[in-house]
Amino acid sequence: MYFASDNWAGAHPAIARSLVTHAEGYAPAYGSSDLDRKVEARFAEIFERDVKVFFVSTGTAANSLAYASIAKPGGVLFAHREAHMLEDECGVPEHLSGGGRLCPVDGGLGRMDPKRLEAEIARFPAEFVHAGRPVGVSLTQATEIGTVYSLDEIGAIAGVCRRNKLPLHMDGARFANALAALDCTPAEMTWKSGVDMVSFGATKNGCWCAEALVIFDPALAAEFPFIRKRAAQLFSKSRFVAAQFDAYFEGGLWLDMARHANAMAARLAGHVEASGNARLAWQPQANEVFSIMSRTTFDTLKERGAHLHEWGVPSGLDNGPRDGEILARLVTSFATRQADVDAFAQALD
Amino acid sequence: MYFASDNWAGAHPAIARSLVTHAEGYAPAYGSSDLDRKVEARFAEIFERDVKVFFVSTGTAANSLAYASIAKPGGVLFAHREAHMLEDECGVPEHLSGGGRLCPVDGGLGRMDPKRLEAEIARFPAEFVHAGRPVGVSLTQATEIGTVYSLDEIGAIAGVCRRNKLPLHMDGARFANALAALDCTPAEMTWKSGVDMVSFGATKNGCWCAEALVIFDPALAAEFPFIRKRAAQLFSKSRFVAAQFDAYFEGGLWLDMARHANAMAARLAGHVEASGNARLAWQPQANEVFSIMSRTTFDTLKERGAHLHEWGVPSGLDNGPRDGEILARLVTSFATRQADVDAFAQALD
Amino acid sequence: MYFASDNWAGAHPAIARSLVTHAEGYAPAYGSSDLDRKVEARFAEIFERDVKVFFVSTGTAANSLAYASIAKPGGVLFAHREAHMLEDECGVPEHLSGGGRLCPVDGGLGRMDPKRLEAEIARFPAEFVHAGRPVGVSLTQATEIGTVYSLDEIGAIAGVCRRNKLPLHMDGARFANALAALDCTPAEMTWKSGVDMVSFGATKNGCWCAEALVIFDPALAAEFPFIRKRAAQLFSKSRFVAAQFDAYFEGGLWLDMARHANAMAARLAGHVEASGNARLAWQPQANEVFSIMSRTTFDTLKERGAHLHEWGVPSGLDNGPRDGEILARLVTSFATRQADVDAFAQALD
Amino acid sequence: MYFASDNWAGAHPAIARSLVTHAEGYAPAYGSSDLDRKVEARFAEIFERDVKVFFVSTGTAANSLAYASIAKPGGVLFAHREAHMLEDECGVPEHLSGGGRLCPVDGGLGRMDPKRLEAEIARFPAEFVHAGRPVGVSLTQATEIGTVYSLDEIGAIAGVCRRNKLPLHMDGARFANALAALDCTPAEMTWKSGVDMVSFGATKNGCWCAEALVIFDPALAAEFPFIRKRAAQLFSKSRFVAAQFDAYFEGGLWLDMARHANAMAARLAGHVEASGNARLAWQPQANEVFSIMSRTTFDTLKERGAHLHEWGVPSGLDNGPRDGEILARLVTSFATRQADVDAFAQALD
Repeated sequence: MYFASDNWAGAHPAIARSLVTHAEGYAPAYGSSDLDRKVEARFAEIFERDVKVFFVSTGTAANSLAYASIAKPGGVLFAHREAHMLEDECGVPEHLSGGGRLCPVDGGLGRMDPKRLEAEIARFPAEFVHAGRPVGVSLTQATEIGTVYSLDEIGAIAGVCRRNKLPLHMDGARFANALAALDCTPAEMTWKSGVDMVSFGATKNGCWCAEALVIFDPALAAEFPFIRKRAAQLFSKSRFVAAQFDAYFEGGLWLDMARHANAMAARLAGHVEASGNARLAWQPQANEVFSIMSRTTFDTLKERGAHLHEWGVPSGLDNGPRDGEILARLVTSFATRQADVDAFAQALD
Repeated sequence: MYFASDNWAGAHPAIARSLVTHAEGYAPAYGSSDLDRKVEARFAEIFERDVKVFFVSTGTAANSLAYASIAKPGGVLFAHREAHMLEDECGVPEHLSGGGRLCPVDGGLGRMDPKRLEAEIARFPAEFVHAGRPVGVSLTQATEIGTVYSLDEIGAIAGVCRRNKLPLHMDGARFANALAALDCTPAEMTWKSGVDMVSFGATKNGCWCAEALVIFDPALAAEFPFIRKRAAQLFSKSRFVAAQFDAYFEGGLWLDMARHANAMAARLAGHVEASGNARLAWQPQANEVFSIMSRTTFDTLKERGAHLHEWGVPSGLDNGPRDGEILARLVTSFATRQADVDAFAQALD
Repeated sequence: MYFASDNWAGAHPAIARSLVTHAEGYAPAYGSSDLDRKVEARFAEIFERDVKVFFVSTGTAANSLAYASIAKPGGVLFAHREAHMLEDECGVPEHLSGGGRLCPVDGGLGRMDPKRLEAEIARFPAEFVHAGRPVGVSLTQATEIGTVYSLDEIGAIAGVCRRNKLPLHMDGARFANALAALDCTPAEMTWKSGVDMVSFGATKNGCWCAEALVIFDPALAAEFPFIRKRAAQLFSKSRFVAAQFDAYFEGGLWLDMARHANAMAARLAGHVEASGNARLAWQPQANEVFSIMSRTTFDTLKERGAHLHEWGVPSGLDNGPRDGEILARLVTSFATRQADVDAFAQALD
Repeated sequence: MYFASDNWAGAHPAIARSLVTHAEGYAPAYGSSDLDRKVEARFAEIFERDVKVFFVSTGTAANSLAYASIAKPGGVLFAHREAHMLEDECGVPEHLSGGGRLCPVDGGLGRMDPKRLEAEIARFPAEFVHAGRPVGVSLTQATEIGTVYSLDEIGAIAGVCRRNKLPLHMDGARFANALAALDCTPAEMTWKSGVDMVSFGATKNGCWCAEALVIFDPALAAEFPFIRKRAAQLFSKSRFVAAQFDAYFEGGLWLDMARHANAMAARLAGHVEASGNARLAWQPQANEVFSIMSRTTFDTLKERGAHLHEWGVPSGLDNGPRDGEILARLVTSFATRQADVDAFAQALD
């Protein structure tokens, strides 16, 4: 019963096979191989427009270099208080952007409130050199707590960005899960809604190491080859990342995997709701389930072989853990078996 | 006839298979899986001592974070004038070390001259805050031009370091090729000769993406988990790197591949020597052959299907290119076929 | 009626004279003159112990380099949500510390609540590389809103630091005003209460440009000459800063100036309290008065020649501005004349 | 006999008086006072065009922030091998530019050879991400060894810059001395010859602390307020720097002081030439004299009360020190008395 994280899973067999297929022969290094080009074209198809695609080694690298690409001296990037960039990246965005700052924005269930965002941005008047100045906004889709911005909600954030002339970045570490949840096109969830660049993650969804920064505006992308290289993120045998993406997109595998993970999360949530020993902290929308339970129940689950993590309680949560209770996170993935989900229900009884 | 670079090759089948083998199942992320631990133990065996091993995504990352781990405000790192860190890393060492500086050191055939090194270090008197201060030395083994430091030569550099209380880093992007050339043990080529840490590269020698910083002194390694994470170089599915190293070391595969590459380079060098249309710039010791030829010959070779690069002429080279001549670099790898080497001889005729 | 800021004042005549006195003759540069040494000895007397004193050009430099001196990869510094470092330094601490992060801590009236501080620190478990790690705490004395930590309150913050093995920095841009308010010794307000280093500001209190970082622990200070130089903060004619401090300390001038400024603030507060057109937002303790008034009153005051600033309302303020009201800041200094303070009372009527 | 450095001198009485004059009263902080504006207008007059002027605390800050203002990821700045930025700034340019790199350029007597400059720039082909890319050129006027670029020589460097689309910075720590040597206008020595920005130093020439970055192109200057603030280089009581410049320019005082310093250097050089115990290493053009003498003579001079420094021998010097000889540097300033110069002649006998 592995629900600790989607990065505990391995790789989908089709992706493993693709790596073997491309192991032979010679190809130019540093992203200039035919396979690299084919995959970039595939991204363009998927996003229904020309895009610039830059492979990097981790999602944190994609996010941090996205920030670096829009950073200015004294710049401030706005993100949800519980965003990965703020909570789980060990100061990488600050470091790789040359000393940038992240400003936390509040909002319920992992999503920035556009009004709060606007208010935070307004704290930095233009030309007031002492406070610093806004340089961009980052939203996480799906959020860190397994919820999803609707297209309207993305549009509302993008509207704030447009009024303040700020680029909008999407941390898409779980891009596919969000897309499956919204059942819309990648274009709709991104540039058609006002997003300027995406950290497009595939590692958590069935790859070994496949992360890309996708930039829609060629002008924004112009400096990026140097920004990536300067952070030691340019793979020599780049084609091995391309090989993963090649299989990932083939026949819609990526969406199949995301739909499976989401369905397993929904099934898990159903078990939690049905149980008398735990309750849902909120309704899951992607592949993460957050459940409130007594510490005793939590410990029992672990003894019975369930892998899951205790989690920090988000600020502003109604009906959160009471005395003796904790919040637990369960994550599903492409590899989650229904049998394990159902075994969890039994373990919870 | 692919001699453009060893990073144009793919992956050895055994390494590809290892990735498939480990694609299934669940394992803790971020380097804490059983396979990660097994591989770290394997490194300890190979180096005949406890070591700390940190996977990163590129050789440039390994070098730059090695620098970051010993950097101090105003610090200067010494390396050969034509070292990868100085010539091919786009300022990454400076950036990731927080603004460090590299000081070029001269020396014949890619190897620092210990006397020149000592003289350069002496330009930075202790306590003279204006000039900055030495923080370490990096040597490249095999060098950028396919030569190799002998054990005595490494020891001489290490002696300078010891007298000046400076840590010594080895850029081992082609560690295996150098080891095969010297026919000594990894321990002899490193810590027994006074080396404190090694960028241990396997990507150029048959892996897809397998680079590690190996640190011998636990005190030097204490901060490294944060240094690596802070540079966005901590893989979540770290075990996929471990899987490559696992197969790499199995049954001495790594040395077999390196010996093959070196032998192909020697054979290629023999062809060059035997030819009337080109000559060796210097005797190769590892898997790179540098040859002087007329531009016409160079162009003809390319027309005939040879992949090779024109190369900058190292300073201080005796008997270098004359008018109308250029320096060409040819690199062999685990994947180089003898037939291609011999075809090159014909193309050169 | 100049109450816009204490940095709108010029310099005390005795300090101006000292600069003239020391304008003649020759002296070694970069802090090694006799006068530099004399002033460092004076600091030691004042703090009743050996200290290391480093002049820098601005208070922001002192704060940021204090941070740099304790920074580690992934490090987080804790400060009050409305601290100068967080609100008015344009990302300098992040930049000069090589990409550090500041974590805001709440607390009433500009002072960190020790329990909140402890809770924030606890969010960063040791060895959990993703979140980053605590590296220090900074408190502002007097605070940005003119209040003062008592010795017990400093001790409580220092206790949290000690338990968590974190160095404690004091931003003393208004050190003298706080000292005059507490009527204690510099030693009591700093190292005897657990403070490890102080940004000792004199610019706001009658100098032109006299800021120093005072470090109590020689081990903490060992790297600082390079940290300062590396930030371009080493004055060549350092003695001109020394000359200001020389006069500043002479005959207790610094405390006389601070007491005057505080007394003028108290008098101003009395006028506000007595007026029907404004009220105190809280009781001033040093040289800043915060008053709530209608925007109409604010505008009238400015028309009548008063220089004062509208100010952001601190979070968690009871009894703050109501509809149509604003918060205004008034700052006094060594140069404030009682006649102007009383003229303000009339303008307010 | 103080010839150790021009920064051992104090301040000219007129400049000291100006500080006293402006010590009284109130003025807006951070560079927005009337006096700040008046001085900026004065700079515009002197340079015969609109300019942007930014005060900073040290010449190293001016140079490093000039670099920061044109830095790009992977960027390389070109300067003479013995430039202050390379030899005496402790890595500040690298640090404050966010990890930039300096590339040394050779050339006789402290001046870059335009052909060597062009050759160094050519080592960084556009789009070749591995090597990095040129971002600017910095020349020092007067040079570190007391020579001066002629207008034609500046124009030749500027021509290389123009062909490579690179901005040209002038390190003018001894701007006035160079100007006096060339007997041309500030405009001719800078923008009319193709210079884009100048570190305009006055500290060495009779001020206490008066350094400014002067930027000719408003577009290049647009980001600079944030760049300066972000480096903690924005003085609150900025008017005290303005006060120094105000007196510095008044009645041509700055040029009078520079001419005096240069004349004293010429007189000193005459004494050296006339002496049998020392010889000129090269002909001085500004306010520095470099002399070759035996170590015995050097020691005797110091015993007899002369302050002077032994100096590193520039590369490529013809007729340099022979066995037992050293190179000594003597610097004159506005404060150098002819009697001391003549006393040196006697001490040398």
